[in-house]
Amino acid sequence: MIDKLMEKKVDSKTLFEGVIFNVERQKVLLPNGKDAIRDIVVNPNAAAVVAIDNDNNVIMVKQFRATVGKVLLEIPAGKLDKGENPLECASRELREETGYTSKDIKFLFAPLVSPGFATEHIHIFMATDLTLGKVDPDEDEFVETVKIPITKVIDMIMNGEIEDSKTVSGVLAAARILKV
Amino acid sequence: MIDKLMEKKVDSKTLFEGVIFNVERQKVLLPNGKDAIRDIVVNPNAAAVVAIDNDNNVIMVKQFRATVGKVLLEIPAGKLDKGENPLECASRELREETGYTSKDIKFLFAPLVSPGFATEHIHIFMATDLTLGKVDPDEDEFVETVKIPITKVIDMIMNGEIEDSKTVSGVLAAARILKV
Repeated sequence: MIDKLMEKKVDSKTLFEGVIFNVERQKVLLPNGKDAIRDIVVNPNAAAVVAIDNDNNVIMVKQFRATVGKVLLEIPAGKLDKGENPLECASRELREETGYTSKDIKFLFAPLVSPGFATEHIHIFMATDLTLGKVDPDEDEFVETVKIPITKVIDMIMNGEIEDSKTVSGVLAAARILKV
Repeated sequence: MIDKLMEKKVDSKTLFEGVIFNVERQKVLLPNGKDAIRDIVVNPNAAAVVAIDNDNNVIMVKQFRATVGKVLLEIPAGKLDKGENPLECASRELREETGYTSKDIKFLFAPLVSPGFATEHIHIFMATDLTLGKVDPDEDEFVETVKIPITKVIDMIMNGEIEDSKTVSGVLAAARILKV
């Protein structure tokens, strides 16, 4: 059944090289024998973390996003540094952006953010048993930490106030695990 | 509190024009007065639908994705046609890709798929009271419909078998509403 869905890549070239991602243009052969063009964003994988304190607050960050020209409320996240594994990245982003470290951080899942046009997987973790240390953001990173009860975060997801997709996926999955 | 997070766009130009999306390079002024470059994928908004039949099966599609070179299992979805609203798009994609129409389709939310680099919102709906008609995919679209019990879909999300982010968000939200 799968064969009739498969495309065959016949050519590929990089048309754009950017600061974070490149764009690759593939020429593919469709199952019906016709040609098609696929433009693909080749971008780094990332990690994110749903960090929940002992009072069931989710540790979140406010961050300006140039894509939409406004500040969004998101779970801490960032791109994997070279040679870094997803768990290290999630722990580092949590510590740098919010000051928290976790003694219990576990992998949830790693969805593709938008498989229609981008290669990125985001590895999402859930962290509990938190300790607050010192915030240490990247020099050119501007974030503000907020703690919000998980039941409130879920309401904000379901009513659309929280717009960031990784936050939606991660918090709804954590909520299933915690049965809230 | 927001002001210290804001970036100011000082310049913008389109560096890549593709078949589906463009790439815009913004020069921005950071809150600390320094410059930074933001490459942004400017892509169309989309709609998707969690369609659930009377036996609690989710109507899903298998589709090859050139971004990852394999077939993924996803909820029906697609880009908004010119002048089309999200509800029309979701209904159309459900009908074209799977043959189903719904007498009860409601809006869930419209997350940003990846606000770190792309402009796209995906408007996600939940559809019930389904009727099966004739499948009518786009000429160059190759999809296969599968029906999977929602409890199984949730398991496949939580164990990582389902990798598509909009499917994760949409199905976990529908599951909360349906209390499954």
